[in-house]
Amino acid sequence: MGYLEEALKTYTEALASGKPTPGGGSAAALVGALGAALNSMVANFTVGREKFAGVEEEVRALLDESEELRGELERLTQADTEAYGQVSAAQKMPRGTEGEKAERREAMQQALKAAAEVPRAAAGACHRVLEIARELVEKGNPNLITDVGVAGKFALAAMECAALNVEINLAYIKDEEYNSRCRQEMAPRLHAGTRLAREVWEKVNARVKGDGQ
Amino acid sequence: MGYLEEALKTYTEALASGKPTPGGGSAAALVGALGAALNSMVANFTVGREKFAGVEEEVRALLDESEELRGELERLTQADTEAYGQVSAAQKMPRGTEGEKAERREAMQQALKAAAEVPRAAAGACHRVLEIARELVEKGNPNLITDVGVAGKFALAAMECAALNVEINLAYIKDEEYNSRCRQEMAPRLHAGTRLAREVWEKVNARVKGDGQ
Repeated sequence: MGYLEEALKTYTEALASGKPTPGGGSAAALVGALGAALNSMVANFTVGREKFAGVEEEVRALLDESEELRGELERLTQADTEAYGQVSAAQKMPRGTEGEKAERREAMQQALKAAAEVPRAAAGACHRVLEIARELVEKGNPNLITDVGVAGKFALAAMECAALNVEINLAYIKDEEYNSRCRQEMAPRLHAGTRLAREVWEKVNARVKGDGQ
Repeated sequence: MGYLEEALKTYTEALASGKPTPGGGSAAALVGALGAALNSMVANFTVGREKFAGVEEEVRALLDESEELRGELERLTQADTEAYGQVSAAQKMPRGTEGEKAERREAMQQALKAAAEVPRAAAGACHRVLEIARELVEKGNPNLITDVGVAGKFALAAMECAALNVEINLAYIKDEEYNSRCRQEMAPRLHAGTRLAREVWEKVNARVKGDGQ
């Protein structure tokens, strides 16, 4: 059983505690999942309503994808805690002989790569959450405009935190080809995510400030 | 029983669903609570260790306050859903006679102010979470440097989203004195929060990029 099935308070308490997991990488995936959930909420308040019949099909497709992204980010919330466990287990391997040292080094490198893959996948999912928020600003039920704004903020914060967690793993990974591939993927992703989040936030704020006046 | 005692997945599903609560305001308080939890984690890995004896007392005080902030932001995660219920109940009041209309208007205004107070309190708590993250960048266990970075990102995103949720309520509140008091409080808070978060993020990234090289 994982954290998703336990009480919300169990997760926040474990995060705050003096145990190594869950940590910031898991929490970043969770914040991404909360962003996806808010996109889904907005889409759920749009589909099936006569007023938005013109975008029904499109928003239904966005809802399906958003729910997939939420599922993926929830899985990564848990997976991050398990990936850390592998690094920790490798760290505890014996290093008495040269052979043991080499074996431990190899296990560490494999575990670190697996640990980097979790936030790398989270960043990719958050990028898509941002693209969906960008669509929902125009196509979603305008009564939920602040929820799209919150979805965008969460997805960018989660992506930036995921990128930081990729980077801290790369700092210990010796495979320069892998590291450079990760960095070449991350930099444009962060750039695009920042732009999308800014567009979403500006449009949402313009609408909110126009309300009631 | 509130969402904190239910399964984490119950919360993310309810957030994603076509029900009005929980929404972005509640989720913003939760992300603030996750930020506070990460500060607590860093502090928990610092106190009681000989290596950090020089900052023991200070970090212990930060931990105590951080845990209070986490508790407050968890309460606000739930309170936001209840405040929305009050607005919703006022909206459903009868408006057949002039007297009923006036009564409903009054109830709506009171409920909207109560609903604005929740994200207003959340923004205040997030400001303090950011100040604590700023201290922990220097005083916390450096092995957890990325977790301080994540705490700062979360607290700023949560504060900005809380401010957006204050603003959407103010758009419907007719008490201009109250509105102007709220806005005069929010603007410098967002300004200070943005500066603190930038300082935390820059220092964390400088450390992470210095690692392993």
